[in-house]
Amino acid sequence: MSLLFRNTNILDVVGGQVLSGQDLLIEGDRIRALEATGRGLEAHQVIEGEDLLLSPGFINAHTHLGMSYFRNYADDMDLDTWLNEAIWPMEAHLDGEDIYWGSLLSLAEALRSGTTCFCDMYYEMDRVGEGAQEIGIRGLLTRGLTSGPDEEAKLEEVRDLYARYHKSAQGRIRVAPAPHAIYTCSEDFLKKTFDLARDLDGLIHIHTSETKKELEDSRAAHEGRTPINYLLDLGMGDLHTLAAHCVYMTEEEMDRVDKDKFFPLYNPSSNLKLASGFAPLKAMLDKGLSPALGTDGDSSNNNQDMLEEIHLAALVNKALNQDPKALPAIEVLRMATINGARALAWEDEIGSLDVGKKADITVFDLNSPNFTPRNNLISALCYSASSEDVKDVLVDGDFVLRNRKLVKVDLDLIRKRVAERMEALKKKAGQA
Amino acid sequence: MSLLFRNTNILDVVGGQVLSGQDLLIEGDRIRALEATGRGLEAHQVIEGEDLLLSPGFINAHTHLGMSYFRNYADDMDLDTWLNEAIWPMEAHLDGEDIYWGSLLSLAEALRSGTTCFCDMYYEMDRVGEGAQEIGIRGLLTRGLTSGPDEEAKLEEVRDLYARYHKSAQGRIRVAPAPHAIYTCSEDFLKKTFDLARDLDGLIHIHTSETKKELEDSRAAHEGRTPINYLLDLGMGDLHTLAAHCVYMTEEEMDRVDKDKFFPLYNPSSNLKLASGFAPLKAMLDKGLSPALGTDGDSSNNNQDMLEEIHLAALVNKALNQDPKALPAIEVLRMATINGARALAWEDEIGSLDVGKKADITVFDLNSPNFTPRNNLISALCYSASSEDVKDVLVDGDFVLRNRKLVKVDLDLIRKRVAERMEALKKKAGQA
Repeated sequence: MSLLFRNTNILDVVGGQVLSGQDLLIEGDRIRALEATGRGLEAHQVIEGEDLLLSPGFINAHTHLGMSYFRNYADDMDLDTWLNEAIWPMEAHLDGEDIYWGSLLSLAEALRSGTTCFCDMYYEMDRVGEGAQEIGIRGLLTRGLTSGPDEEAKLEEVRDLYARYHKSAQGRIRVAPAPHAIYTCSEDFLKKTFDLARDLDGLIHIHTSETKKELEDSRAAHEGRTPINYLLDLGMGDLHTLAAHCVYMTEEEMDRVDKDKFFPLYNPSSNLKLASGFAPLKAMLDKGLSPALGTDGDSSNNNQDMLEEIHLAALVNKALNQDPKALPAIEVLRMATINGARALAWEDEIGSLDVGKKADITVFDLNSPNFTPRNNLISALCYSASSEDVKDVLVDGDFVLRNRKLVKVDLDLIRKRVAERMEALKKKAGQA
Repeated sequence: MSLLFRNTNILDVVGGQVLSGQDLLIEGDRIRALEATGRGLEAHQVIEGEDLLLSPGFINAHTHLGMSYFRNYADDMDLDTWLNEAIWPMEAHLDGEDIYWGSLLSLAEALRSGTTCFCDMYYEMDRVGEGAQEIGIRGLLTRGLTSGPDEEAKLEEVRDLYARYHKSAQGRIRVAPAPHAIYTCSEDFLKKTFDLARDLDGLIHIHTSETKKELEDSRAAHEGRTPINYLLDLGMGDLHTLAAHCVYMTEEEMDRVDKDKFFPLYNPSSNLKLASGFAPLKAMLDKGLSPALGTDGDSSNNNQDMLEEIHLAALVNKALNQDPKALPAIEVLRMATINGARALAWEDEIGSLDVGKKADITVFDLNSPNFTPRNNLISALCYSASSEDVKDVLVDGDFVLRNRKLVKVDLDLIRKRVAERMEALKKKAGQA
């Protein structure tokens, strides 16, 4: 089967431009041609694209999909109360079936706001993978790892997951270990997770430098070293690292990390809402790093809408740097696409609309008030658009959202199951 | 005609709670009853409301509706280049017909994101009023006033506008003068606008303390006085004042102003995007002021979505104050509703869902991923909801949005006219 978007508008994130009057041809799961309209491209199915904007699907580089239960459950609290009294007592009762349905809800939100690929850190990751395959999204499953008596079992679980999922399901699901953070993993265990990563694809996902407390505690516990310096000293430097948050990353650390291996994952909603702070985005970019963008989980966001993160990132960093030219729209759109692909070590296949890459495409409807008049479409995507403007989403050349309806799953059923299971969870946790 | 929302959920912004199992009865343009379901309320039309959340319609306290043409036209520029090279040369060619269609587009966006009342500062305000009456929204028309040879004509225009519109159109349209700012109005002219306000309803709308430059220039030009102190010394203190921005309002000014007369209008998107700075919201609230919320015009936002402003206000002020409890969801929702009503001197009729007030209501569809599971609906509105969740909007008890379709105007025609007129404007300004 082949599909042609004819005479359409293409967001070229690398070139920093929107190309109009383009034909984009999809054959199977890949983009086979992209050229000026009128040179005779044909396909089984043709969509007239003059009123559409095709963007590379967004890549949500850091989330906890199963946490959709805790959306709006406990907000406007200090962090300790939030974790100890609200989230952890509930999380202790989450089972695989809960995480399956909760992840499906988060993935439904993701597709409906133009996301085609995620990087999830949680547990019961086999059930997350099951949900991802059913809904038709691409993703990296990273099993969150913390120290404790079951350390070895958790490492084994990652090996199993890798054997079962990695590059299966038409190559859409990959697997990597995720040491949770320096304050939840012992030094010895961190090293074991790094060794495991070396045995697999050399990739890890970790929370780091999220709060001022983490920074100060690290200095106190590790001979004055900041979290990232401590991790590099433990041997993380040779691994491809997805480093969530980096709110307190220092310029000295930015100089030290390998810019082709270390990727800060910026989560503006979460960092602002939890009052963690303002990550030094501009410094990261000035130093040549490639930060990617994430939503974090629903409990600290409280949704999975990448367009909100794009909007927030662009706005907040202008005021923070007292410069209306700081973090221009195209830079933020790169963070949400090609930088995400680099961070996930998937740049050869996704992150931009190029011939030979996978056809992971978000289709925006330009016949929306937000795109009227059609001035600068890059600005419009960043500053005006909302998820309602996402008309269709394709992953591997296949429609997974069509006219704002999820193609492969029943959203009403997912919502119903999550609502029922939340009531049961509250009873189990004595919070009903 | 009467309309009953039966067994529904009501956002009580003053009490800071959501009341479930409520019947809300509308007769004509007003809320006639609000009570627990099951006491026998009847109406011509009944809507089952279990899966709906009724909020007071949002009040956009500061905008420039006619500027929708300049959305995404010139972003990521410094302020001087933006104004001098992009916006002003185009604005010079805007005529009444342009402003009519551009305002309709902004008003369409407003209704589609749950806004039922606006405060607009622009010119050709008779045409803005015409658009507002056609689309069915409530609003305060404030004619922007700047010094120049036509000062007297502009003041006369406000008097005419007041005579023609004020409390006409079923009382939905009001009028007040809007001296633009201290840097565009002479001292003498500012005093004249204050005198005019005293002749009318004692209300003015003004930009103040938006940028650091404005603060510094005011100190240099006016014997060390900050902008608000300067305005108070000119006699503004006895007027009911809608003060847009107040990014650089000092605590001494907060102590000096009359809290029942001076209302800061907070515009987070615009202040962040133009890198004006972070307004001292928490200090304003701590001092007992009632800040309201606005979008500013599309040229610096770049849309009219109040839910985005609510979200942004809540998030940014937590990080700014290093406190996850700063600016809780309900406080921001008050800014968007009851504080807006106070700011517009309209609290007796709008801003909360109370018996006797006008039926200006935004209806959210709880059968949305963003509201699943239904934990805390106040949190959900602030942190999760998006404009797509706005199902219906009523103004004066009349549906103006129904199932996300504008009832009284043709949105496609509005978009078409704005797009055509923008092309013509670019030609006129030599920017085609």
